[in-house]
Amino acid sequence: MTGTTATDVMARCDELDRHSAHPRYLERVYLSKEHAAANLLAERWMTEAGMRTWQDAAGNQYGRLEGREPGLPALLLGSHLDTVPDAGSYDGMLGVVIAIATAARLRDKVAKFPFALEVVGFSDEEGTRFGTALLGSRAAAGTWEEDWWDLRDRDGVTLYKAFQNFGLDPRRVADAKRTPHELVGYLEAHIEQGPFLEAAGKPLGYVTTIAGARRFMLSVVGEARHAGGTPYPRRKDALVGASEAIVAIETLAKVTDCIATVGRLEVQPGAINVIPGRVDFSLDLRAETDAERDAMWDEIRIEIQTICARRRLQFYVNEAHSATAMPCAPRLQDAVIAGIESTGDQHPMGMWSRAGHDGMAIGKACDIAMLFIRCLDGISHHPDESVTAADVGTALDAFESTVLSFAAAYV
Amino acid sequence: MTGTTATDVMARCDELDRHSAHPRYLERVYLSKEHAAANLLAERWMTEAGMRTWQDAAGNQYGRLEGREPGLPALLLGSHLDTVPDAGSYDGMLGVVIAIATAARLRDKVAKFPFALEVVGFSDEEGTRFGTALLGSRAAAGTWEEDWWDLRDRDGVTLYKAFQNFGLDPRRVADAKRTPHELVGYLEAHIEQGPFLEAAGKPLGYVTTIAGARRFMLSVVGEARHAGGTPYPRRKDALVGASEAIVAIETLAKVTDCIATVGRLEVQPGAINVIPGRVDFSLDLRAETDAERDAMWDEIRIEIQTICARRRLQFYVNEAHSATAMPCAPRLQDAVIAGIESTGDQHPMGMWSRAGHDGMAIGKACDIAMLFIRCLDGISHHPDESVTAADVGTALDAFESTVLSFAAAYV
Repeated sequence: MTGTTATDVMARCDELDRHSAHPRYLERVYLSKEHAAANLLAERWMTEAGMRTWQDAAGNQYGRLEGREPGLPALLLGSHLDTVPDAGSYDGMLGVVIAIATAARLRDKVAKFPFALEVVGFSDEEGTRFGTALLGSRAAAGTWEEDWWDLRDRDGVTLYKAFQNFGLDPRRVADAKRTPHELVGYLEAHIEQGPFLEAAGKPLGYVTTIAGARRFMLSVVGEARHAGGTPYPRRKDALVGASEAIVAIETLAKVTDCIATVGRLEVQPGAINVIPGRVDFSLDLRAETDAERDAMWDEIRIEIQTICARRRLQFYVNEAHSATAMPCAPRLQDAVIAGIESTGDQHPMGMWSRAGHDGMAIGKACDIAMLFIRCLDGISHHPDESVTAADVGTALDAFESTVLSFAAAYV
Repeated sequence: MTGTTATDVMARCDELDRHSAHPRYLERVYLSKEHAAANLLAERWMTEAGMRTWQDAAGNQYGRLEGREPGLPALLLGSHLDTVPDAGSYDGMLGVVIAIATAARLRDKVAKFPFALEVVGFSDEEGTRFGTALLGSRAAAGTWEEDWWDLRDRDGVTLYKAFQNFGLDPRRVADAKRTPHELVGYLEAHIEQGPFLEAAGKPLGYVTTIAGARRFMLSVVGEARHAGGTPYPRRKDALVGASEAIVAIETLAKVTDCIATVGRLEVQPGAINVIPGRVDFSLDLRAETDAERDAMWDEIRIEIQTICARRRLQFYVNEAHSATAMPCAPRLQDAVIAGIESTGDQHPMGMWSRAGHDGMAIGKACDIAMLFIRCLDGISHHPDESVTAADVGTALDAFESTVLSFAAAYV
C-alpha cells in the first residue's frame, strides 16, 4: 500500500472505524482512548509519507514535510478525526486521509516548494463530548477560552481533567497555537453532507463560505410531581412545554433559509410516573449570513418565552458556541477551482457550507478554502454515510492539483 | 424509642432516607444495595415489634405476629420501600413504618386475634428501575410473568441478572406467592398524593377504588442525519414528531377526566448537530374506570399514528404495564371508615386513587382497602413531599382502630 490511491484511502477510513468507544457503532470523542489510537494510526501513515510528526498540546495530530528550506511557513491540509455518536466513516476522517495521501503524492515536489506542507488531524470538531465544537482547531487558532476548562462531559468529567487523563497539560494549551506567520493557508477536503453535488451530477465542488452557527443549551423548568395525583390545572410539566417549543422552532425555521435543530434532550427526573420537572435541550442554528441566523434566534427566543410564560415555566438560555460565517479566501479558492478543473470539470460548482468545519476556527489564523466531495443522498452523521472510490480518486487528483496550483502561484 | 408514636414514625422515615443511590437526592430502586439496606432496617424495626421476619423470594420484607394459634391466615399491613428518582420521604415508606408501628401497638392484642398480623415492605412498586411497576407485590400475588426476566435497566442489566446480583434465585420467584387462604386481607396507609383531603380540611380519607393504569413505551423512528446538511423537505426528525405527539397527548387528555403523562424520554443519537433518528418515550395513563382509560388510549394512538404518517416516521408501541381498576372490599373499607371515625371525623371522605398502589397487585390474592393521609399541596414524587406529625399521629390511631374493628367483626 502506497497510501496514495483511492483504494488505499478507503481502506484507511475503514481502519479508523475500528477505533470506536462502542462495539456496534462508531463514536470517537475528544480526549478518549480511541482519540489516542486514531492519532497513532494517522501518525504512522504520516511517517510512511516521509513526514516529521507530533501531537500538539491540544491533542491535534500533525505531520510536516519541509519545503525548499527548513522552517518555512506551511500550507496546512487536514480535517478532523473525532466523530458524532453513531457516525459514518467519512465526515472528517476522509479529509485527513486524503491530506496524508496528497502529502505522500507530493513528497518529492514539496522539497522544492516555497513553503512547507503540513497535515493535521484535528482532535475535536464535532463537540460531541463537551458540547462546544471545534476545540481542537480553536486551540490551533489560538482562540481557546479559559472558561471552557469547567465544561463537563456526561459523566461529569471536566475538560481540564480530561486533558490530564489524556496525558496533556492544560496549562500548556497555548503551545498549540499556530501564529499567522507559520501558516500560508489551510485547505480541507470534506464530504458535502448535503444533496446538492449529487443533484448536479458532479463529484466535486468548492466552498464559498462556511455558515455561521450558534449553539445553545436551553432549559425549561417546571415542577416534578406525581403523575397520578396532580390534576392538569396544577401541573407545570416541563416536557410538554419543551415539546411545544421544539415544534415551534421547526415551524419558525422552515419558512426561512435557516436551519434549526434540536438534537439532544434530557428529562429530569425521568421516571414514568413523575411529571417532568426540568428539560434541557440543545439548539443548533445555521444560516448563510450571521444576520439571518441572529434574527431567527430572536424569533425563537421570544416564542419560547411566550410558551413558558403561558405554562408558568421558567426558561434559561446558555449559549454554548458561536461562530461567525467564514468566507473562503479568493487565492486559495481559485486553487481549489483550478484543482477541480484539472479533473475535467470545466464549470466547477460553488456552494455555501451549511455544516460547520474546522476552517471556521483555523480561519482566524490563516486563509482557508475547502473542496467538497459528493456523498450519497446527502447522508452524514449516520452510519450510512457513503462516498464512491471513484469520487475519492477524483478528489485526490483535484486536491493534489490544488496544492500544485497554489504553489505555482505562490510569491 | 418505642416505635409507636408519630415522632418515632417521622424519625424512621428520615432514617430510611439515608439509603439512597445518590448523595444529593433520594433514589432507592429494586434490587439495589439501598433496597437491601432498607430491608435490613425494616427487619430490625419488625424484630423490635416482636415479629418473626423474613425476606421473600422477590425481595419483599415481611414480619409476622401469630394470632391466637400459630399458622392462621394473616391480615397483611404494608406498603413499599422503593422510590422514584429524586423522591420524597413518605410515598410508600410512611405506610410501611405506620404498619410496623401498628403491629408494635397491637403486639399483645394480636395474640388473641382470630388471624395473624403481618407487615410487608414491598420491594418494587414504582417500577423505576425496570419500567414495569408493582414487581414486588405482583410476585406476592402470584402474577409474575416469565417474560419480565428479559427487562433491562438503563445499564443493560436484565431483571434475571439483577435477581442474582441481589442474592436471589430467579428460578424460585414463585415461592414469593401468597395464596388466598394465607391472607384475610391487605390494608395500606399512604399519603394521598393529591390535593383533595387538604382542600376538604381533613387529615384522613378512605379509598373506594384504585384507578386502572396502563403504561407504554412508545418509539418514534425517523432518520439521523447531519443537522446542517439536510434541508427540511428531506428531514425525518423523530424528536419534532415525538414533541408534536406529547403536545397532542396533553391536549386530548385535558378535556377528559383521564390523566396522561410522558415522564421519560430518550433521544438517539443525542448529539447537538445530528437530527434525532429515534425517540423513545413513556406514557402513563390513568382514569377512574378501565373503559375511560382505554378509550383515551385509542384516541392518543390514532393521533400519534396520524402525526407519524404525515412526517414519514415509524411509530412503535410497547405496553409495559396494565392494571385494571381495583375496587376496595366493603368489609375492609368499613373497617377503615370505622378507624377514621374513631379519631373524631364523623363523616369520613372517600375518593378514588389516581395513583397506583400495591393493592392493585395484591388485590388479586385477597381483599384490600386503603387509608389516605393528607399531604402538603398534593406534592408527591418530589423531595418537597410533606406530611405533619399531627396527621401521622391521627393516622396511627385510625389504622390501629381499623385493625381492631376488623378483628371485632371477623368471623
